[in-house]
Amino acid sequence: MLHQDSYKQHISAQFNAELESVKNHLLEMGGLVEQQIGKAVESLLNRDSGLAEEVIAGDVQVNQLEINIDEECSRILARRQPAASDLRLVLAISKVITDLERIGDEASKIARQAVKAAEEGGNAGSSFVEIRHIGSHVGDMLRRALDAFARLDVDMAVQTVIADREVDSEYASAMRSLVTFMMEDPRTIGPVLGQMWALRSLERVGDHASNIAEHVIYLVRGLDVRHVEPDDLVAQVEEHQ
Amino acid sequence: MLHQDSYKQHISAQFNAELESVKNHLLEMGGLVEQQIGKAVESLLNRDSGLAEEVIAGDVQVNQLEINIDEECSRILARRQPAASDLRLVLAISKVITDLERIGDEASKIARQAVKAAEEGGNAGSSFVEIRHIGSHVGDMLRRALDAFARLDVDMAVQTVIADREVDSEYASAMRSLVTFMMEDPRTIGPVLGQMWALRSLERVGDHASNIAEHVIYLVRGLDVRHVEPDDLVAQVEEHQ
Repeated sequence: MLHQDSYKQHISAQFNAELESVKNHLLEMGGLVEQQIGKAVESLLNRDSGLAEEVIAGDVQVNQLEINIDEECSRILARRQPAASDLRLVLAISKVITDLERIGDEASKIARQAVKAAEEGGNAGSSFVEIRHIGSHVGDMLRRALDAFARLDVDMAVQTVIADREVDSEYASAMRSLVTFMMEDPRTIGPVLGQMWALRSLERVGDHASNIAEHVIYLVRGLDVRHVEPDDLVAQVEEHQ
Repeated sequence: MLHQDSYKQHISAQFNAELESVKNHLLEMGGLVEQQIGKAVESLLNRDSGLAEEVIAGDVQVNQLEINIDEECSRILARRQPAASDLRLVLAISKVITDLERIGDEASKIARQAVKAAEEGGNAGSSFVEIRHIGSHVGDMLRRALDAFARLDVDMAVQTVIADREVDSEYASAMRSLVTFMMEDPRTIGPVLGQMWALRSLERVGDHASNIAEHVIYLVRGLDVRHVEPDDLVAQVEEHQ
């Protein structure tokens, strides 16, 4: 019996190590994606096409991490057949990496706008303040979503979901001012559209960060809040203590 | 022994029934989402805000289906602990419904543009041909992706992925002509932007349909082609017969 117990402990230690490892890989992927977004925004603001090309090339690594982590998840499910909270963790990881991969895509899209902006030269800089501001806002959201995941911190996750509403309203106001800008000087239509696409990408990053935070809430509370309005969110999460 | 065999058969029949059921629910969700996209495009082209509101309201049902199917998948994984191809099927379903849910979101976005266009009145109809064309193209892609899933038809899935490249080029050309249109008549900037956002949404629908087709390829061939260039796709899939 002693022998069997120590065997079981051994298996369970291995299993925990595997879960830790896949969680770490997810956080590593998250860190990379966070960098990609930061660099993409910098490249756009500074018209730095070298940095932009670096971001575009870096997307391959993001994609590879997604594939690797997905395989790790499948392997764990097949071999360990986890139950309850372990199963939820693996499923959440497999969803979160989809969001991270798409944030990586948005970083590439922003970088492609940066390359175009650098080629066009000129300065239709009216929205650079907004791009910087919204860029740093969604960067914070992403960092907090990943921290919330690492620590299984529901409060931080809820704050991230709520922050997305601010980003949406900042985005809408930036877009309105860009439309006005275009109308006042139609020669700026081309470059201003580029800035609009970049802003749109940043707004999508906020959505994905919010999705990640929602997975944390599901993981910890077993509560699916993907389609709950932010106003009802705090109340629902508190009910499910 | 006979008793045990028939018990095993019973379990396995139940398990197959559960897999069939979740697959059917996915196809049902796919059918609904396909309708949502079709209606959203119609509402935009005909400035039919009644139909557009129907689409916006219908998104709740799409979201609910996603949640239900996700729960069904978790339940199967927890109770049946499937292996090999059954495990791959459940994981693929759980990824595909994420794409379907996002196609549903794009349908809502298009419908919101339709409501705005109907309010604004007027007619900046230059891109209606393109919207109709790209709309029916991505509608076809989605239908084929879902058929490929239902029949596990790799060839059809490959065709769907390749079709996405055509959509991308149609999209790029439609966007160029809209930019020209805006520049020639800056009074149209507002409504034309609305059409651009709608086109962008349709282009995203194509991406998601392509993702679904990629999951079919993974399911049947065990080959992850998510980040393979379309030119290399046919060769890679043939190698993995």
